[in-house]
Amino acid sequence: MQNNNDNLSNLRHSCAHLLAAAVMELWPHAKRTIGPAIEDGFYYDFDFGDTKISEDDFPQIEEKMKTLVKEWKEFRRKEVSKEEALSHNQGNEYKKELIEEFSEDGQHLTIYTSGNYTDLCRGGHCPHPNNDLKHFKLLSVAGAYWRGNEKNKMLTRIYGTCFPTKKALDDYIVQQEEAKKRDHRKLGAELDLFTFSDLVGKGLPLWTPKGTTVRRELERFVVEEELKRGYLHVMTPDLARLDLYRTSGHYPYYKDTMYAPIAIDEDEFMLRPMTCPHHFELYKSKPRSYKELPMRLAELAKLYRYEKSGELSGLMRVRSFCLADAHIIATPAQARQEINGVLDLIDFASSAFGLQAGKDYRYRLSLGDRANEKKYFKDDAAWDNAEAVLREVLTNRNAAFFEAADEAAFYGPKIDVQIKNIHGKEETAFTVQYDFVMPKRFSLTYTNEQGEAAEPIVIHRSSIGAIERTMAFLIEKYGGAFPLWLAPVQVVVVPIAERHNEAAETIVQKLKKAGIRAEADTRSQPMQAKVRDHTLQKVPYLAIIGDTEINSNTVSLRSRHGENLKDIHLDDFLARLAKEIETKANP
Amino acid sequence: MQNNNDNLSNLRHSCAHLLAAAVMELWPHAKRTIGPAIEDGFYYDFDFGDTKISEDDFPQIEEKMKTLVKEWKEFRRKEVSKEEALSHNQGNEYKKELIEEFSEDGQHLTIYTSGNYTDLCRGGHCPHPNNDLKHFKLLSVAGAYWRGNEKNKMLTRIYGTCFPTKKALDDYIVQQEEAKKRDHRKLGAELDLFTFSDLVGKGLPLWTPKGTTVRRELERFVVEEELKRGYLHVMTPDLARLDLYRTSGHYPYYKDTMYAPIAIDEDEFMLRPMTCPHHFELYKSKPRSYKELPMRLAELAKLYRYEKSGELSGLMRVRSFCLADAHIIATPAQARQEINGVLDLIDFASSAFGLQAGKDYRYRLSLGDRANEKKYFKDDAAWDNAEAVLREVLTNRNAAFFEAADEAAFYGPKIDVQIKNIHGKEETAFTVQYDFVMPKRFSLTYTNEQGEAAEPIVIHRSSIGAIERTMAFLIEKYGGAFPLWLAPVQVVVVPIAERHNEAAETIVQKLKKAGIRAEADTRSQPMQAKVRDHTLQKVPYLAIIGDTEINSNTVSLRSRHGENLKDIHLDDFLARLAKEIETKANP
Repeated sequence: MQNNNDNLSNLRHSCAHLLAAAVMELWPHAKRTIGPAIEDGFYYDFDFGDTKISEDDFPQIEEKMKTLVKEWKEFRRKEVSKEEALSHNQGNEYKKELIEEFSEDGQHLTIYTSGNYTDLCRGGHCPHPNNDLKHFKLLSVAGAYWRGNEKNKMLTRIYGTCFPTKKALDDYIVQQEEAKKRDHRKLGAELDLFTFSDLVGKGLPLWTPKGTTVRRELERFVVEEELKRGYLHVMTPDLARLDLYRTSGHYPYYKDTMYAPIAIDEDEFMLRPMTCPHHFELYKSKPRSYKELPMRLAELAKLYRYEKSGELSGLMRVRSFCLADAHIIATPAQARQEINGVLDLIDFASSAFGLQAGKDYRYRLSLGDRANEKKYFKDDAAWDNAEAVLREVLTNRNAAFFEAADEAAFYGPKIDVQIKNIHGKEETAFTVQYDFVMPKRFSLTYTNEQGEAAEPIVIHRSSIGAIERTMAFLIEKYGGAFPLWLAPVQVVVVPIAERHNEAAETIVQKLKKAGIRAEADTRSQPMQAKVRDHTLQKVPYLAIIGDTEINSNTVSLRSRHGENLKDIHLDDFLARLAKEIETKANP
Repeated sequence: MQNNNDNLSNLRHSCAHLLAAAVMELWPHAKRTIGPAIEDGFYYDFDFGDTKISEDDFPQIEEKMKTLVKEWKEFRRKEVSKEEALSHNQGNEYKKELIEEFSEDGQHLTIYTSGNYTDLCRGGHCPHPNNDLKHFKLLSVAGAYWRGNEKNKMLTRIYGTCFPTKKALDDYIVQQEEAKKRDHRKLGAELDLFTFSDLVGKGLPLWTPKGTTVRRELERFVVEEELKRGYLHVMTPDLARLDLYRTSGHYPYYKDTMYAPIAIDEDEFMLRPMTCPHHFELYKSKPRSYKELPMRLAELAKLYRYEKSGELSGLMRVRSFCLADAHIIATPAQARQEINGVLDLIDFASSAFGLQAGKDYRYRLSLGDRANEKKYFKDDAAWDNAEAVLREVLTNRNAAFFEAADEAAFYGPKIDVQIKNIHGKEETAFTVQYDFVMPKRFSLTYTNEQGEAAEPIVIHRSSIGAIERTMAFLIEKYGGAFPLWLAPVQVVVVPIAERHNEAAETIVQKLKKAGIRAEADTRSQPMQAKVRDHTLQKVPYLAIIGDTEINSNTVSLRSRHGENLKDIHLDDFLARLAKEIETKANP
């Protein structure tokens, strides 16, 4: 029996047949190649020769699909010889290549026919296309090399999707449109949060004043909260001698994701891909006692990892990022309490962004594999213990989590924070790792209560992940309408007429004195135009002032959500702002 | 007529003769080489063969110097032939090398005799050594290559100094001892502020939790103050494509002070030596209007400059530093007001560190040279104008300044902030530069009031210089006893007996809640030992609590300066702390 996922795949692959049938009727000289189902739909690749196909052609193609499908009662399967298969695809060198490959080991070939359309296919279709293929939509067109190889010809790929019900299709389209509107790259430009420069280089964002303001609030929030929780913030260099990464084992094993070394004097230096060895060196700068443990060394650490230019994407994939990083050096007995404390912090920080554990994110317990000595450090007892500790912590706090085999780090098991993005997909945002290997490599020790040298364990963890990625996530989550505490401009004071400009400036000064990021809009433009501009810029509050307000020391408030409040006393407004910032509210 | 500096030099060089005379009497087989006066005294280099000389030998040498000088009534000059000169230095290959070199062009050689001691010398002595050479002291011993070339033999250099009066010598010795005690490298280790790791690399400090706390306070102070003054803080990447620095002209001209390029894909990237081109790219990300000017782009910018390992010194000379940097892009008409604003900020920030303009620092107006087209961009009118603007601003604000010819930047004149260090020496801490060249190179433009494209000017400036260097300066200035607002630990609560530990922790929680960096010392040690430890660590306040204090909700205060205050109510203590932090006082 097939499961639901297979049913959906079959539906979509069937729709790819239908797309090809329509295209071949409309452009008989086009050469069809392959048309698989993919995660959110399907695609079909064609060689259109000199003809250019664009989204403008979609209505015509969709119309033809709707006409053709009426006659498609089923998919008829037929086993055929190589010759017969070829006869259905004359002059099509792509299909010829596939047919010759598939028949190389003497296996049977199959073709499927529905209506007048026949295609080489291994099968997997919906039972009644004329009934099933009703809720489809073509989505986009893109270039794609034949068989993914850039040495081959560039084909035209048409993407589409198909759902079993109209509602499911509509929901998907709305979600996609919403996601497109919230795309952090688009909002980043519209709200002037960050930019890129070809001269500076790909994957290296430049943060504008507004983006920097949001980032600064975010960074200070993390630092303050970590300090409150007993973390010790430090600052360590962004580069170090190659020898440091040889000791840690990052080099040469992670060589491909590190930047090329820089020669200085007789030595070679590297931009750091990780913070851990730097924190270990700081730990080792003095002899340490059990009284100092757990030592929670934290840093907003700039890290550098090589990303191919094709894989770079806005703030999500960059070539240099800043991780809210920490390494907790602890006695083995302190591991439970420390990991629990880390999860407390993660839950706390996430809740500040309106994220609920279990709903918006969950934990993944990523385990090792005792049999795989190449991938995982060999110490069965240590693995058993560490995995048990992590599982126990997660279970005791009733955390929403699931287990995943063979997903651990080289040096120990980990807890991954799995967050849903705006496309509804779950991604690993960052991790909490139990490490019993690095303390050996770096000879980390402490003097225990008996006065003997003992080996600590290390917990590698982030609290909110990489700042760039978190910013991308938050921009998309809020659709650019940051809650007051994060908003780059919190209040714009809008004078009704030019004679109110001076009073507007006075109010801005009062707001600024109270720590509010405020501006006056004294441009010589109609008030409504100003309101529109700042609403588009997602400014949380507009404070409108005219004669009435000035005389009574009040403002008329308009929130970006359309809330209107007449004649609020300035002190009440300040109190409201202070409370909303303090509670990190998102009304 | 000789000036005072020459007199002092002659005195000290004469003392070098005396040192050599004493050494030759005590170690007749030693080979003397050269003995010049230097900034703070003199030295003499010897080849002692296998004999090791240390500071332990100084009393004996000084005694001999005192005995010999009694017979030194004058320095008798004599012109001699090469042969006669050689006869005074038989078996001494160093003097031989000098004699042969000096006599190469047929010039006369001179020897000087005082008492029984004769040395090859070009002259410059005090008139009456037996009267003049009374206040001298040997200071240190070090290795030095013959003629400074590491391929030559390592000689033994003895440093000493000499003053015309006992008071001047004593003052110098006290100042040197004080400077040694305040040396930021020594205090950095004693107070656990920063450390270095051989594995990480030379010139790359690792900031401990305590050092990071001071640095964070410093950085936030600058950022907050700059934001208040209308600066827009941004964040730009620490590396960029080589092309960016080719456009700015930093590469290849500054190639020697930049790190080697890093290959990424087909491109070459460099760690940035300057922030300016990054800020220019940010400026260019959108079309700009005169309404946006002046645009004051500021950043705590990490910069990378190559320093030879021999030139690295604590935090003063490092291989990566963080500059409190900014670039003000303005219309030419705004230049005066903006430069004046920068000097306001510098005076304000300096006063927060207890530095007085005119006393602790002064300004240097560094001018160009119209004739030197290689060193300075050729545009006489622009130079005339920019120099006049800077001079006018300095004059109008009655700033303490002096002018220095031929000290400008390539792209325009500058104002250097000249600060006295703990050795009493004046150094350039950082600069304010008027730049009329980079706007051309980067095609920076704005639309002026007439709707036409116009070229702005750029002011490059720092507010407190490089954070590392400023930290070094402040550690030495305060001798590690940071004012309350900067102190890494502000209050330690010391319970008199173990039964007061819990109350101590409660007070710490109250202090922390008020934003105070507080700790409780609940170690099982005598109270006096605790007081000593924290006083050595220069903690501003110790709050001592016993039964009396707990019952009355008070603390007994002891400041690190020895001030004792009995039974201060906790609320009064909190108010005192808040005020001292707020005013950045240094009582």
